[in-house]
Amino acid sequence: MDERLKRQLDFILEIDKEKNIFRQTHLSGYGRNENDAEHAWHLAVMAYLLQEYANEKVDIAKVMLMCLTHDIVEIDAGDTYAYDPAGLETQRAREQAAKERIYSLLPDDQKEALQAIFDEFEESKTPEAQFAHAMDNLQPLLLNHSNNGGDWKAHQVTAEQVYGRQSRTKEGSQRLFELTDTLIQENIAKGNLRG
Amino acid sequence: MDERLKRQLDFILEIDKEKNIFRQTHLSGYGRNENDAEHAWHLAVMAYLLQEYANEKVDIAKVMLMCLTHDIVEIDAGDTYAYDPAGLETQRAREQAAKERIYSLLPDDQKEALQAIFDEFEESKTPEAQFAHAMDNLQPLLLNHSNNGGDWKAHQVTAEQVYGRQSRTKEGSQRLFELTDTLIQENIAKGNLRG
Repeated sequence: MDERLKRQLDFILEIDKEKNIFRQTHLSGYGRNENDAEHAWHLAVMAYLLQEYANEKVDIAKVMLMCLTHDIVEIDAGDTYAYDPAGLETQRAREQAAKERIYSLLPDDQKEALQAIFDEFEESKTPEAQFAHAMDNLQPLLLNHSNNGGDWKAHQVTAEQVYGRQSRTKEGSQRLFELTDTLIQENIAKGNLRG
Repeated sequence: MDERLKRQLDFILEIDKEKNIFRQTHLSGYGRNENDAEHAWHLAVMAYLLQEYANEKVDIAKVMLMCLTHDIVEIDAGDTYAYDPAGLETQRAREQAAKERIYSLLPDDQKEALQAIFDEFEESKTPEAQFAHAMDNLQPLLLNHSNNGGDWKAHQVTAEQVYGRQSRTKEGSQRLFELTDTLIQENIAKGNLRG
């Protein structure tokens, strides 16, 4: 087998491990914890379906690829819960090391392409990255809302914390931030989120 | 909330159930059974990375979308194992009913668009559908190969059965069929597959 294809296959097998990285979010129907791979799948489908709400027209193939690959670094770095201040402090260093190790399995051109996609997502300055972040914020909110705020209650999360994260959705989609705001207010009213 | 967005969100929540549809394939590292959502994620990333091996140039956004959505029907229809003749007989009817129910949650234009993507995948006549099928064949083969053929051994699958399915990979990618052939021969030699 030629070296290029062998490297691509090594990477493809390596990322299988993303299916074993579990998040704090639970599946709908009061299900088990969600893993990163199925989360990424959900974001990519959502991005396709909701692209009409992006503030600016987006290159949907790029958004989908960003959604699909943005958590590959967590194979080494682990999932960092959005409301864990200690974890958030070291997140960047852990993810940068992972980005180097995992993408280096690929041929150089694909390593560079996927690292650039990851960096673009992290910097969140382009319409594609901002819309991908809107998906990454909205998806756990929808699941948690469907489970009567179970994840917020378990971690005693406050409305202020949720707004701190979710307010950036408006950079990608004003319309979906309005939806987010409605859902947060509904959960405060129900006592699922501490006001 | 307006009706269009509400329907989109209903569909997005409905497809969360795909994470609970389990396949016969096991994750690498002798892991648990794989579910449809993470399988679809893996195919879409593979399609992006391996697109250079498609027999004809493909619209990669369409291939990725096809990979991401091709198993949504299994929320109702269940997973049909590739080497289960009784299941394969009723598969089409079960999947057609599922296609109608699940996609009807969406606004009409998106229902039609995603049903068309599913039909195109099933008919397997376009370069995009043929390449998506090549991914759908190759991915479980790679996992099973990494697990020393455990899934084949468990179901006493023969090389002839595997070739029956995998030979269609050449419609999408001659190069990836050569790879497939090499891997099958290796597994016959190791006694993982009955010759």
